[in-house]
Amino acid sequence: MAQDRSKLRWNGWGFAAHKDDIAGREEVWRRLAAELGMPALLATPPRPLDELKLPAARLSSADRAMLAAIVGADQLRNGDFERAFHAQGRSYLDLLRLRSGDLSSAPDAVVYPRSTEEVLAVLALAATRHIAVMPFGGGSGAVGWANAMRSDYEAALALDLSEMDRVIEIDPVAATATVEAGIAGPALENALKAKGHTLGHFPQSFEFSTLGGWIAQSGAGQASPRYGRAGDWLLSVKLATPVGLLETGHLPAGPQLKDIVCGSEGVLGVVTEAVIRLRPQPFFSEVHGFLCRDLHTGLEIMRLSMQSDCPPALLQLADSEALRFCRGFDMAPTLLQKLGNTLRRWRGYGEASCLLLAGFEGDTQTAVAARRRFAVLAGRHGALALGRGPGEDWRRTRFRLPYRRDTLLDRGVGVEIVETSAGWSRLEAIPAAVRQAVASAAEETLPREGARALVLCQAAHADVNGASLTFTIVFPRRLEGDIAQAQKIKAAATGAILAAGGTLSHHHGIGRDHLAWMERETGKTGLDVLGAIKKNLDPEGIMNPGKLLP
Amino acid sequence: MAQDRSKLRWNGWGFAAHKDDIAGREEVWRRLAAELGMPALLATPPRPLDELKLPAARLSSADRAMLAAIVGADQLRNGDFERAFHAQGRSYLDLLRLRSGDLSSAPDAVVYPRSTEEVLAVLALAATRHIAVMPFGGGSGAVGWANAMRSDYEAALALDLSEMDRVIEIDPVAATATVEAGIAGPALENALKAKGHTLGHFPQSFEFSTLGGWIAQSGAGQASPRYGRAGDWLLSVKLATPVGLLETGHLPAGPQLKDIVCGSEGVLGVVTEAVIRLRPQPFFSEVHGFLCRDLHTGLEIMRLSMQSDCPPALLQLADSEALRFCRGFDMAPTLLQKLGNTLRRWRGYGEASCLLLAGFEGDTQTAVAARRRFAVLAGRHGALALGRGPGEDWRRTRFRLPYRRDTLLDRGVGVEIVETSAGWSRLEAIPAAVRQAVASAAEETLPREGARALVLCQAAHADVNGASLTFTIVFPRRLEGDIAQAQKIKAAATGAILAAGGTLSHHHGIGRDHLAWMERETGKTGLDVLGAIKKNLDPEGIMNPGKLLP
Repeated sequence: MAQDRSKLRWNGWGFAAHKDDIAGREEVWRRLAAELGMPALLATPPRPLDELKLPAARLSSADRAMLAAIVGADQLRNGDFERAFHAQGRSYLDLLRLRSGDLSSAPDAVVYPRSTEEVLAVLALAATRHIAVMPFGGGSGAVGWANAMRSDYEAALALDLSEMDRVIEIDPVAATATVEAGIAGPALENALKAKGHTLGHFPQSFEFSTLGGWIAQSGAGQASPRYGRAGDWLLSVKLATPVGLLETGHLPAGPQLKDIVCGSEGVLGVVTEAVIRLRPQPFFSEVHGFLCRDLHTGLEIMRLSMQSDCPPALLQLADSEALRFCRGFDMAPTLLQKLGNTLRRWRGYGEASCLLLAGFEGDTQTAVAARRRFAVLAGRHGALALGRGPGEDWRRTRFRLPYRRDTLLDRGVGVEIVETSAGWSRLEAIPAAVRQAVASAAEETLPREGARALVLCQAAHADVNGASLTFTIVFPRRLEGDIAQAQKIKAAATGAILAAGGTLSHHHGIGRDHLAWMERETGKTGLDVLGAIKKNLDPEGIMNPGKLLP
Repeated sequence: MAQDRSKLRWNGWGFAAHKDDIAGREEVWRRLAAELGMPALLATPPRPLDELKLPAARLSSADRAMLAAIVGADQLRNGDFERAFHAQGRSYLDLLRLRSGDLSSAPDAVVYPRSTEEVLAVLALAATRHIAVMPFGGGSGAVGWANAMRSDYEAALALDLSEMDRVIEIDPVAATATVEAGIAGPALENALKAKGHTLGHFPQSFEFSTLGGWIAQSGAGQASPRYGRAGDWLLSVKLATPVGLLETGHLPAGPQLKDIVCGSEGVLGVVTEAVIRLRPQPFFSEVHGFLCRDLHTGLEIMRLSMQSDCPPALLQLADSEALRFCRGFDMAPTLLQKLGNTLRRWRGYGEASCLLLAGFEGDTQTAVAARRRFAVLAGRHGALALGRGPGEDWRRTRFRLPYRRDTLLDRGVGVEIVETSAGWSRLEAIPAAVRQAVASAAEETLPREGARALVLCQAAHADVNGASLTFTIVFPRRLEGDIAQAQKIKAAATGAILAAGGTLSHHHGIGRDHLAWMERETGKTGLDVLGAIKKNLDPEGIMNPGKLLP
């Protein structure tokens, strides 16, 4: 069964019922205010939906009737919650707009197709009627999803795939599954687990994002060192486009169109079905913590383990700022109490210390061998083994962090996230460059003199050649012009990343928020090729306008 | 230093000086004649170059002068050997044409650029002058390379990359190398080995093929289970096109244009430079032989080992027909003497037995663990461990088999090769289907009643989900119409493969020889997208016409 959308937040992360334990703890907010250089942190709640007026829906009754004839009247919805829920993604800018009550990007209606054929018919109709179509999986995208160019079209539809969520076939011999794209993470993994398999794709959005979204965003899960990213586990894909169905098939020779569909962010068509690679449900799965003396050591342990013949299944390195932030503000108490104690006992691990989580997974023999060799490597680099406690804490809280962003937003604190990837030889210089850039921009971005932005860094998604870095930038919000503030902070961080040799994104994608840098990353020739592909599959330009391609 | 082309055969495989030890052994030919149902095998030598007249070179003196101005007069060559050497690839059909003295496909001149800038300038000139350009790496392509549409163009140039063979940079920390595309296998591996690295890409054409060719053909090396195929180790690429340089960069989000360049077979432009993933030179490398009771058991051992957490680095399964052919005709005597002895001792391994080679490579600890676990798995499936002997034999002869094809051609025996890939659940049915199809076509393909075609099968390039199958079809040549004969045999085998769920190719590519089936494999929408990309990068249609895209 598809997820019950009415239990989710239309203007924030996840389940409406989720309570964040720091919300009412004023001592936390006093400490955070001091940390950010603010006298106090005031309540800045979002505007409730019943106060807001949505723009009038523009879908003509003739178009409505034709759409209803394709998908059925029940599958074409335009209630206020439906439209508001589908108005934006979940980037920081998206949240600012939603919380301020800006629903100008709300689609005129939401279509819930139930088959590839229905999607094809909807797209063919939309193309003739010049109606923009935005494919919608879980809506958790982190780089701007909304219909940026709404006014150029007759109308704008959100195409919600969540009712196309069947596991069509599992082939246990070839270790593949054929699955509809609208299935959300938990439903997919439950179905696979029942047959002894896993896809192993666990992004932070796992509970809410969908297979099609992972493919369209070229996503990477937390255990990507073992399971790869979407392009690795995707074997073939069906893309419904305005000109017809693109089915990539399994021919491994010749240009691989599946790798153009993967990462296409809805601008070429709608991912409706995929054949994916399965791995066995692991017999053994442990995550261990290691305290590293500094960032350099932590990255070096990551690199050497990934370049060895028995790499870990998961690696996440929280830098000293991230650790201090969590510790000071009690974001994961049991882990950090332990860490505090440990730190006291072991004087050698000072302010620069970083926490490295390493996961080992698979058959017991191989996973235990990997764990043993990793421990030797970490020890040789002076890391302190903390056992499974930090890993258990991580497992318990692994999908909860995005809720914390909403809690901070409620108290005047902004959280922008910038991520990148780079080869191992360039990675280490990037965090300092980003901190420098964010600090330099403080005067024009922060609300008062003396205010500070914190830059927390996490390295993850390691492979043989490099890894990703995710920067969580925490800062006091400007009450006026908070969108411009966020854009300036993002621009400062992104400029520093690109200058230091990092990529524009690792797995969050391009969306709207990264458009300005796309030509720099892809080059004019590359953009022209992508434009030619777009023109071929979507000659009327109705697919997810304003994303990916400038 | 680039390879000395004058030491190579213009109408066959590899070094002109290579001698095949069976050439003069009449008892071998008598046995083979009986096997093929022929009264005798007569000498059918190729026509020597000095007897042949090449078509007049059509390059105008103005064009010649402009090309010489770009690359230098020394780098523009049009001697008979140069033109004949670049007239075809090394597919069976290519060899038939060359041996018969058909040089109608010879380029009008051969250009040897020395930089990406020179390639760009040549392509820009060729586009304005409507001159066809065929990128040429090592010339070992197996699916038809020649300029099929020569007559539609003002002239046809071969663009030989072999003098662009520098290793530009090795980054030992990020484990990457930046390399010019014209470098041949041995030069590349020697340069990497000197620094402790390997690419691990060892196709059968290793001695003669180039990095750019591996990328353009989406190649796979013999140890692909460990090192992956071109799309796996290619990190970014420069493609010189008639409209300018496409540099794919390292952005992992968004559509991956590198995976369109990979496998593009020269129709979009010229691969001039690549950044590739390196692995450490393995401390440990062993190849062991296992005798399996039948094809099913061999494939099952391959599958289970690849789906485990410590897969072998290499797997090659020769089926019983391939084994019998080698044994009967003494193609690898030491191995087969041993096998014969073993077979006698162990009655259980009868006519259906297959030989599985399994390689273990990497750090000693991991590779030895993999070997031990593989031996247990193989034993559990009733396979007989033959030790390292078969592996040593394989290592000694691994690049020699293509020479044997020329030897057979010299004695009226044809050798067509057809390869495919499929998921594990469909793989096993394919060999019987191909044998059936080839046998059914015997009457209209073979030169006399009672003649037979042998179908030898090898499984390789295994991964989690499936493997490739290569069929070597050995048959008595028709002295008249040998091209039509080969085409009919290939069509029969390919039709059977596709009907049984195999792909049109695994790593040989599309070229000319597979064009007829390309729409069936890729679909009309897919072909249209590829056509749009081609049109965007090569609006004049000068790049390698007649290949890949129907």
